[in-house]
Amino acid sequence: MGPDAVLWRPEDLMLYEYDALSSVTQPQAVVFPTSTDQVVGIVKIASQAKLPVVARGAGTGLSGGAVVTEGGIVIVTSRMKKILEIDLENRRARVQPGVVNLDLSLAVSDEGYYFAPDPSSQKACTIGGNVAENAGGPHTLAYGVTTNHVLGLEAVLPSGEVIHTGGTYWDRPGYDLTGFIVGSEGTLGIVTEITVRLCRKPEAVKTLLAVYDAVVGATRSVAAITARGITPAALEMMDGFTLRAVEEATHAGYPMDSAAVLLIEVEGLREAAEENAEAVEEVCRENCAREVRRAKSAEERDLLWRGRKNAFGALGRISPSYYVQDGVIPRTRLPEMLEFIEQVGKLHQLRIGNIFHAGDGNLHPLLMFDARDKDQSQRVLKAAEAILTKCVEMGGSITGEHGVGIEKRDLMPLIFSDDDLEMMGRLKAVFNPRGDLNPGKLLPAGRMCGELRVQVSQGGEV
Amino acid sequence: MGPDAVLWRPEDLMLYEYDALSSVTQPQAVVFPTSTDQVVGIVKIASQAKLPVVARGAGTGLSGGAVVTEGGIVIVTSRMKKILEIDLENRRARVQPGVVNLDLSLAVSDEGYYFAPDPSSQKACTIGGNVAENAGGPHTLAYGVTTNHVLGLEAVLPSGEVIHTGGTYWDRPGYDLTGFIVGSEGTLGIVTEITVRLCRKPEAVKTLLAVYDAVVGATRSVAAITARGITPAALEMMDGFTLRAVEEATHAGYPMDSAAVLLIEVEGLREAAEENAEAVEEVCRENCAREVRRAKSAEERDLLWRGRKNAFGALGRISPSYYVQDGVIPRTRLPEMLEFIEQVGKLHQLRIGNIFHAGDGNLHPLLMFDARDKDQSQRVLKAAEAILTKCVEMGGSITGEHGVGIEKRDLMPLIFSDDDLEMMGRLKAVFNPRGDLNPGKLLPAGRMCGELRVQVSQGGEV
Repeated sequence: MGPDAVLWRPEDLMLYEYDALSSVTQPQAVVFPTSTDQVVGIVKIASQAKLPVVARGAGTGLSGGAVVTEGGIVIVTSRMKKILEIDLENRRARVQPGVVNLDLSLAVSDEGYYFAPDPSSQKACTIGGNVAENAGGPHTLAYGVTTNHVLGLEAVLPSGEVIHTGGTYWDRPGYDLTGFIVGSEGTLGIVTEITVRLCRKPEAVKTLLAVYDAVVGATRSVAAITARGITPAALEMMDGFTLRAVEEATHAGYPMDSAAVLLIEVEGLREAAEENAEAVEEVCRENCAREVRRAKSAEERDLLWRGRKNAFGALGRISPSYYVQDGVIPRTRLPEMLEFIEQVGKLHQLRIGNIFHAGDGNLHPLLMFDARDKDQSQRVLKAAEAILTKCVEMGGSITGEHGVGIEKRDLMPLIFSDDDLEMMGRLKAVFNPRGDLNPGKLLPAGRMCGELRVQVSQGGEV
Repeated sequence: MGPDAVLWRPEDLMLYEYDALSSVTQPQAVVFPTSTDQVVGIVKIASQAKLPVVARGAGTGLSGGAVVTEGGIVIVTSRMKKILEIDLENRRARVQPGVVNLDLSLAVSDEGYYFAPDPSSQKACTIGGNVAENAGGPHTLAYGVTTNHVLGLEAVLPSGEVIHTGGTYWDRPGYDLTGFIVGSEGTLGIVTEITVRLCRKPEAVKTLLAVYDAVVGATRSVAAITARGITPAALEMMDGFTLRAVEEATHAGYPMDSAAVLLIEVEGLREAAEENAEAVEEVCRENCAREVRRAKSAEERDLLWRGRKNAFGALGRISPSYYVQDGVIPRTRLPEMLEFIEQVGKLHQLRIGNIFHAGDGNLHPLLMFDARDKDQSQRVLKAAEAILTKCVEMGGSITGEHGVGIEKRDLMPLIFSDDDLEMMGRLKAVFNPRGDLNPGKLLPAGRMCGELRVQVSQGGEV
């Protein structure tokens, strides 16, 4: 692969110790393959050397999926960035995993198409990473998460074997290996090619900002919009604390004195979108919106979204550190959850901002703290766990779109029984029998038969 | 379970030898459990007696998924027909597997909801069977297949262990076992509970019938509608031969002298649906539709759909037997495929009718023959194989919605490599190590490690 495709000096390796979380160890090497064949070669070398292999996209993940837990080789996919095939008539594309999410949409934009999953990191994150974490985004409400847009995969197993799953259609004969690999966080195979669905851009998009003097109006509007039978393309909520931070950073035009805003997008044929926008406006006003604005141009629309998509960065300006959580609840319980989060903040003396993919019931509480302060860090972790536990109690789940990674592996027993986790471990072992693909992720420690064996045998024979 | 829950007399067992295909052997017993616990009991007894277990819904399947290949116990789910929970606010329901597909929609209809997957057999088929085969239907185009509507499952493994998968959200933490089990045709576990998404009924539905003097106008309209950025809820096509048979049987009002019709449904808020209907009408006229009718009432709409949904029965009136095939191709290649099917019909001297879920590129050629005539039967099988092989050559697949069953297991190597199939076999063995759940289905003979071991050891020790 040549010397410029491998990093091995400790100072170079340091850069690859982090995604949103940080590694406890350095990898032995970081490599940058350009082809499936090179990935096969790397995996075989790693297997001979008994080294773990961790695949990494852009490192924008939020659950520690790409960090190293036991050393080994990090395969960075950033040079596997070819769009291999575009078939607009049948609305699909085949890409290498390192293609940046937004770049695929840009490549087909002039012809009127786009790739629907749009995580807020879409300017940087890779489609391979989206597949690993089954990433979501603001448009999940109408379009689903990454798995709903992946038709087929090519993946390299730890043995060096290359498998092909799925195809180009909704219903795939045989066991759905594609769906099984999407969201598996690099623990089953290294994905080297992805066939995705492309969506047709709607004729018209209407973007609305509904402004509330009380949070409860916003949460009620969310329930009322969906009860009315409207599925907006996006239905996002920000609380007052967050929108003020965002407004100061981005000047998107969010009113500084409001308690909450909803950012709502409806789309379709011109008149259809107009009718939906009017209906949404009416529902918001009925639920005490003090104002409903509409973006009048593409620029205004972009500005509203820039605020939303840069919200995490904006909060970074007002707090030395922040911890973004990711949970999901029935959307009807949003008001109750917001109250709960407020109480948790008071109890642990933390400022907590709230950004929700409200239509999905997908929460992103942002906990402000100073990472240099041990006590604050501890309180943040306790507060986060309290919120996630509450999500599960409400019939929800511990992650809406960020994945399990190392962050939540030990919370998996909150939603799965020992038998369920045992079954996952056995299935994992079929792909990854020695546990050397992305060890320490997704399944709670002690339940990963494969992993355990490797840990035990790391100094000796496998 | 009581004596009325078990059948064992050969004359009673006969009824359970068939779905669309027929069994080569009789089961030893047919049982009708009402609860998960009873299923666990049956599975344990079967395991002790080393008998295969085959789950069966309504027996409406079209690929032999529910027929018996090696004797054993048939578990019929028809008494597990409770709707266990309906949560309209969060749009979901939890049901037993024997609930008839249409009954779930009827149960929530007054409140304005429905269950989207609607196979043509929806008045009879069960949701458990839909899950087993990952069934489709005319509304797949907009709403996806069964797997897109299943959020979570409870399943009994051959060991008697009960697992719970998924939950109530799009993105499920951990490996997606739910998606893996949907479409696995009863070879991984007996599904005993299903959590599904419910959809909100649209405010307005417009049903159109576009009539063509030449087939090519219809196929071009299909491509043009989707290229225009419209996703109809349904986009069905029938050729002249089929629509005449249907018209004679159902008097749905299809014009007897036309070469093809498209049945198109658009929906949404009132004005949005209207605008979409107008756009569809325009596109059809541009592509040489001689007439585009609209259903003016719910009765007219039902009549148009009754024609489509009873099409198979209608063809049964004009031919002693028919064989319905199920393949899928890129929808842009429909014109070419129709020509190919015509040639195949001529070559094998068979009349072939065509019904397509045209929007999906999902073909249902109907091959007319007389099953009592050996030569005709042989020609039908050859013609069907030629059509499916062509589907694969065109970049398509061997089944769009009916599943693999016994019918297509030996065609799986057309689309999967030995390595891919080997991987499927290994994953299956994790759930079903002795291969005693629905043996002989889905994977080609000789590749199912589990199965083979059982066959070898059937007379002795396992």
